[in-house]
Amino acid sequence: MDKTFMALAIEEAKKGFKQTYTNPLVGAVIVKDNQVIACGAHLKYGDYHAERNAIETCSTPEELQGATLYVTLEPCHHTGKQPPCTQAIIEAGIKRVVIAQLDPNPMVSGKGKQFLESQGVSVEVGLLGEEARALNPYYNHFYQEERPYIVLKSAMSLDGKIALKGERTQLTGSVANQFIHEERDCFQAILVGSETVLVDNPSLLGKNSSLYPPIRIVLDRRGRIFAKKDLHIFTDDKAPVYIFSQQEVADLPSHVTVFTAEQWTVSEVVARLVQEGIQSLYVEGGSCIHDAFYEADLWDEWLLYLSPTLLGGDALPDMSSLRPSRSVKYLSDLSLSQIGQDWRISAKKGR
Amino acid sequence: MDKTFMALAIEEAKKGFKQTYTNPLVGAVIVKDNQVIACGAHLKYGDYHAERNAIETCSTPEELQGATLYVTLEPCHHTGKQPPCTQAIIEAGIKRVVIAQLDPNPMVSGKGKQFLESQGVSVEVGLLGEEARALNPYYNHFYQEERPYIVLKSAMSLDGKIALKGERTQLTGSVANQFIHEERDCFQAILVGSETVLVDNPSLLGKNSSLYPPIRIVLDRRGRIFAKKDLHIFTDDKAPVYIFSQQEVADLPSHVTVFTAEQWTVSEVVARLVQEGIQSLYVEGGSCIHDAFYEADLWDEWLLYLSPTLLGGDALPDMSSLRPSRSVKYLSDLSLSQIGQDWRISAKKGR
Repeated sequence: MDKTFMALAIEEAKKGFKQTYTNPLVGAVIVKDNQVIACGAHLKYGDYHAERNAIETCSTPEELQGATLYVTLEPCHHTGKQPPCTQAIIEAGIKRVVIAQLDPNPMVSGKGKQFLESQGVSVEVGLLGEEARALNPYYNHFYQEERPYIVLKSAMSLDGKIALKGERTQLTGSVANQFIHEERDCFQAILVGSETVLVDNPSLLGKNSSLYPPIRIVLDRRGRIFAKKDLHIFTDDKAPVYIFSQQEVADLPSHVTVFTAEQWTVSEVVARLVQEGIQSLYVEGGSCIHDAFYEADLWDEWLLYLSPTLLGGDALPDMSSLRPSRSVKYLSDLSLSQIGQDWRISAKKGR
Repeated sequence: MDKTFMALAIEEAKKGFKQTYTNPLVGAVIVKDNQVIACGAHLKYGDYHAERNAIETCSTPEELQGATLYVTLEPCHHTGKQPPCTQAIIEAGIKRVVIAQLDPNPMVSGKGKQFLESQGVSVEVGLLGEEARALNPYYNHFYQEERPYIVLKSAMSLDGKIALKGERTQLTGSVANQFIHEERDCFQAILVGSETVLVDNPSLLGKNSSLYPPIRIVLDRRGRIFAKKDLHIFTDDKAPVYIFSQQEVADLPSHVTVFTAEQWTVSEVVARLVQEGIQSLYVEGGSCIHDAFYEADLWDEWLLYLSPTLLGGDALPDMSSLRPSRSVKYLSDLSLSQIGQDWRISAKKGR
């Protein structure tokens, strides 16, 4: 029955989708005498963790005596916005804890388990581990690789172009556009180059389906966008804006932060985003920005919206730069689906 | 029952696939007293037509008296490599002819029908016309549009590139490569630019699955390839080679023909191919050649082999040129299939 209860905890975890910000999705199920007596999830950044939410639903402390807790992620043993869950588990009198995945954060990994065991609780680790890890691909990636999960996203015609020169060009249809808006909300930050901002003047907002809308990041070494205060990223304050530039600028709206340095390489930008705790990044181009991430090997997934169009001539090609390209990279984990009139193709960096 | 007999004639027609060269696929079925008494197809360029093949299978002339002929294409009424089929039909004593499609060649269309009717034969036209037309898309296109059916084919990475600069680059896998070889055999000619010949040194042959291998056409205005007599297109004589150039050259192998003019625009090349009776053209690039056909609006289908690769940097983009591109063209009749590790995407010029 262990597997059934853990599968239930995994389903429970999903209730926090798009509400937990940098926190992972976690689900918990408490079982006594083979009966589920409580369920809980981490429902919102800053709120109770899953274990405590489950414990709190029990009406009397006696119910919990000698119970088993199934939890998708190792209970925390440090005081953050909430007191440690390990303490709550001990106090509740839970005697056995089944954990799907140890916390991938190397600073805390194993500490919850260790403490519980030191208090005489029986702990098992790994049941449905893969399924539990799939709940939090970006959180896991961030702690394991020490940088955000980076998706290079573009919309391309059937002849490999992304736009007419110097002109905002809409290639994908309305169904895909809606889909992309919602997809943005699954990331903690969206990144574009200044050229995209100047030509397209995008809001770079999601569909507002997340409690924590993605931070909008613009790479603008020369500070070209500062002269245009009527750009949507300045006038629309629905999500923070980070600008990486050489220029220092005063009098910006309060939702805009400028990170200043003489030279921002892609590696330096990513290092800075790590400091900011950003676990996932949706890079929307243009061509040179994509190529800079590709060349620096700072990417994990290629995401392509392929539109049934042709542009030809001098239209802008997808990912390119003056850098000599000397090799063909093969991708893995391909998937393809139709979204309205377009195709969505994703593939991961081959190992 | 008419439909059943015509459907049988259509199946019969397919027996000539890849053997009839510039002639259409045609099938015929002869029926008497609701019984099929004979079937026939046009099996090979220069050989008997379908009607005569069917008639010949009958052992006695009496069988044919008063019979009905179902034929996928209007019987011919002119003497070509064979005497007119209309004459054979009259002589056989066939009293009713059901035709799926009138001959699309405006010079002869309707003449067979008219003659048969003038001889007292009952003629009906149009049964399963669409299905019959689908047997010969290129033949129909050639006579209706007065030019070959032109496919712009490329193999592209997921970032819209076709090759590393100046280097033969294989993007598609072995399954797709085999498929493409066989696909070439469905066309009467394959066309490439001189750059492709110089960089890739291809044989440009099919899989030898057609009795009439496609003619290999090279556009080489400046005659750059003539200096390299060891190129495969010169050393391999398995199919004719046509070269369009400014240069006149002596001492070429006998399978090579040079068409000389001061300037060969794409329109002029196509006009010349019409004179040569070429009904279908598979244009394999590179980028500028595709763009020239695209710009001249001399194309019908975009055919893309999408490979799960990335090239980035200064790799060569698919269809492009210095010509300012000012509009997005939407395609229709999209289809997508997986061929080994690659995807094959075809789409037609939107109407």
